[in-house]
Amino acid sequence: MIKEITSPQNNKIKHATSLKLGKYRQQYQEFLAEGYKSLELALQAGIVKEIFTLKEIPNIKQDIVQYIVNLPLLKKLSSTQNPEGVVFVCLKQNKKPKKLDKVVYLDKISDPGNMGTIIRTAFAFNYDAVILSDECCDPYNEKVVAASKGAIFLIPVIQQDLSSLKEKRTIVVSTLSEKAQELNDVHINKPFVLVLGNEAHGVSESSLLLADVLVKIDISNIDSLNVSVAAGILMHHFR
Amino acid sequence: MIKEITSPQNNKIKHATSLKLGKYRQQYQEFLAEGYKSLELALQAGIVKEIFTLKEIPNIKQDIVQYIVNLPLLKKLSSTQNPEGVVFVCLKQNKKPKKLDKVVYLDKISDPGNMGTIIRTAFAFNYDAVILSDECCDPYNEKVVAASKGAIFLIPVIQQDLSSLKEKRTIVVSTLSEKAQELNDVHINKPFVLVLGNEAHGVSESSLLLADVLVKIDISNIDSLNVSVAAGILMHHFR
Repeated sequence: MIKEITSPQNNKIKHATSLKLGKYRQQYQEFLAEGYKSLELALQAGIVKEIFTLKEIPNIKQDIVQYIVNLPLLKKLSSTQNPEGVVFVCLKQNKKPKKLDKVVYLDKISDPGNMGTIIRTAFAFNYDAVILSDECCDPYNEKVVAASKGAIFLIPVIQQDLSSLKEKRTIVVSTLSEKAQELNDVHINKPFVLVLGNEAHGVSESSLLLADVLVKIDISNIDSLNVSVAAGILMHHFR
Repeated sequence: MIKEITSPQNNKIKHATSLKLGKYRQQYQEFLAEGYKSLELALQAGIVKEIFTLKEIPNIKQDIVQYIVNLPLLKKLSSTQNPEGVVFVCLKQNKKPKKLDKVVYLDKISDPGNMGTIIRTAFAFNYDAVILSDECCDPYNEKVVAASKGAIFLIPVIQQDLSSLKEKRTIVVSTLSEKAQELNDVHINKPFVLVLGNEAHGVSESSLLLADVLVKIDISNIDSLNVSVAAGILMHHFR
């Protein structure tokens, strides 16, 4: 169905804009996303509620309303300065993982760009799920959604304690500790959990206590890699 | 030397603020950076011209002036909402690489965060230089500098044509092409150039024509990895 909206006071616009705040994402169990490629993946996941677009998009199911808006309204909804032309509301799906044999665990990751990029990489390397500790940033933050490039619609992202995953799984913790083994010397079998730590502080003490294997990437000159780069190298190795 | 500045109209503040624009970075051959850890690396590189800080920093050489400023002034200079407490002006150094045996070539990389992260990773894996094609973003953009975590002060970042690097070097091009070999099957010796393409369009036709080896990272589910993640995986492999 196609409708037109011209007023910023329209209730649909107000509702969608409210989803920029975590408390409304929580209250309504909805979140915002944007871009044509992302829309394609969100439609594939069946979680699109309504679409705000500059022009009609062909082949959208009848029950998903397309609101045609002007550029100022689209910019109001978008999180980028030059929006691609489409912003849409998604339903949080609380997708349950089928199995947890190969998962990445984010220990207090605070940067939305890093989280989104890690979700994208985990999906690309066929991980079963991305598991978040408490104190991570909100995975439905627009920047996480954008950086995930739609992966967040399709891979389960759940919150769970690392301790609850330990039984039967090898806990592999990425750390700069001298006790850690160099990545290329580490070979593990499924099921396993790969643990990545906070950008500034690394993995927490409680995660280190649960570790079966400590692993590090050999680097020179500088203290550390960006966590999403480190995650990429580790997930590529532990495929 | 320590001085105090309280006015936003102060010439030092005006000059430093102007460096947020590429044309003034070009005109003065200077750029802005911030944060204590970055300052440490910039001092190590000997490129710090002057410092704006909330409070005096100990052990700074006498000839580098420390301007003590208040929080509103610091925020004016900073590119982050919550600055760490120090912003400083650096001299572009045009550092010449000692050799170009192991280099990464960025083919029209446009996102400053990606470029900074790749510079950080190249430095961590002991690359000789980061080489930029034309049409890349400005490597002295604040976001590049921030994402590089100080690596940009210490690894040569230069602009040069790929064709000028081809003689005597293996040109390894990262591409999603079906003709590309899977990364783990590719082993090359120095000297080499690793070529990474634009976020949206991949490597350019002219770079593909110069390629000796096409390489790809096997992924599922999704079109591509983030370019700085792909760069990390490739540089970790080609160390």
